[in-house]
Amino acid sequence: MSMSAAAFFAGFVLDRDSGEPAYHQLEEWLTGRIRSGELPAGTALPPEREIASTLGISRMTVRQALDRPVRDGLLVRNRGAGTSVGRPMLVGERGRLGGISDVVARQGRDSVTRVLSLDELEPPRDIARELGLDAASPALRLRRMRRVDGEPFSLETSWLHPIACARIADIDLNGRSLFEALTNDCSLDLTEARESVTATTLDPFEADQLTLSPGAPAFRVRRTTLADGDVIEVVSSVIRADRFSFEASIQRTDTDPYRPTPQLAQETL
Amino acid sequence: MSMSAAAFFAGFVLDRDSGEPAYHQLEEWLTGRIRSGELPAGTALPPEREIASTLGISRMTVRQALDRPVRDGLLVRNRGAGTSVGRPMLVGERGRLGGISDVVARQGRDSVTRVLSLDELEPPRDIARELGLDAASPALRLRRMRRVDGEPFSLETSWLHPIACARIADIDLNGRSLFEALTNDCSLDLTEARESVTATTLDPFEADQLTLSPGAPAFRVRRTTLADGDVIEVVSSVIRADRFSFEASIQRTDTDPYRPTPQLAQETL
Repeated sequence: MSMSAAAFFAGFVLDRDSGEPAYHQLEEWLTGRIRSGELPAGTALPPEREIASTLGISRMTVRQALDRPVRDGLLVRNRGAGTSVGRPMLVGERGRLGGISDVVARQGRDSVTRVLSLDELEPPRDIARELGLDAASPALRLRRMRRVDGEPFSLETSWLHPIACARIADIDLNGRSLFEALTNDCSLDLTEARESVTATTLDPFEADQLTLSPGAPAFRVRRTTLADGDVIEVVSSVIRADRFSFEASIQRTDTDPYRPTPQLAQETL
Repeated sequence: MSMSAAAFFAGFVLDRDSGEPAYHQLEEWLTGRIRSGELPAGTALPPEREIASTLGISRMTVRQALDRPVRDGLLVRNRGAGTSVGRPMLVGERGRLGGISDVVARQGRDSVTRVLSLDELEPPRDIARELGLDAASPALRLRRMRRVDGEPFSLETSWLHPIACARIADIDLNGRSLFEALTNDCSLDLTEARESVTATTLDPFEADQLTLSPGAPAFRVRRTTLADGDVIEVVSSVIRADRFSFEASIQRTDTDPYRPTPQLAQETL
């Protein structure tokens, strides 16, 4: 049973003079409630017709307001059974070294990786340079697919240093953490990483692998991992954005700008 | 003048047995070069016809390989003048408190914000709760558009505490940093923030404001800023992803898992 539209949208006030289209105001309000956890996974939305008549807007406007949240995976359209709030996200803590296996484990979720391919081939020039390899030298390329809670979650392509990570070629990585294998099987002391996160959309191949639609939003994470000061891995991952967010707690440091000056504080007294 | 396709794609080897479609391999190779900076902004790609014949693939495959990089803004299709590499990204350093104005200034780029609206109204319940306000109490809502280097960059909606940030209602924020104004005009000592980053796609309204196409990838950043332990601002930003990436340097800490155990290290000797 879904809540009545009047109860559901009790806090929503449409501002008709703001220059912001009605569908966008409704969408922002709704996704804010979902992201804050106020509307938990599985919550059923009232029927579109009822939302429209309650808020005094057209069904088209309601539909437009739901379009992107559906594409982003915040809402799920159930065939013949209306629209409901999608599953909660995994939260990546920024600034941790452990990789996704670690994030997943710490949140009590289940993560399994499957090896799609492992070959030895010449990496692109920028990756060869990062790994400190000569132009024609091959590296190990490991392609994996990760499932979280049984559902496709990310595609990961790792380029591994051919000497430091040589033992990776001999072991079965299915279901194992690569970090753990590099530590225990290759005896590498992984001490630091550099990470770059961009937002992208899925192309048809990735969408097919991740069982989503092309054009769905995704994170592209490129990560360089160092052991004893040397780069031993460059990994590029595509992570579906409806199942993942990055969170951070930030404390002011000495290099941050803006702090009250005593003079100004006095002026305001 | 563009480089010949043979020279341009010298390092690219198509793996026909990998199960990964040709267009996807080409796209990965190409976007890797762009993201690494090997192909700087403005670099012209060889004509699609020439790429196809050089690599022994169809023009359709070449076109497919360029589709997403164009949508993501990594490549730009110039009417009648082929395809070239798009403009470089701003890099957000994670874990800094200063906000986007600070990031932009530190990279020697030019950022200007324009106030779209500033009103006093009842915030959504989750935001009222975060700001520590009673149910019916109004807050200040500030909507701004930021341009970087003259180009639309982000849309930002800030909910500000009506008492702590009261002076914001009386000053002209056009062109100023909100952080700076909160510090100097409201005498607030901004000490920490919590930030959550998700990936999304632009809806038609946002796309129009940011002069992009609906469906282009974007970051959604939700940030809660604290002064002396109290939440004084909750801001939600939509940032175009073709102009921004988040970077982080990560050092192993005591709470990270996986480090070589002395026994295992010995076994491998």
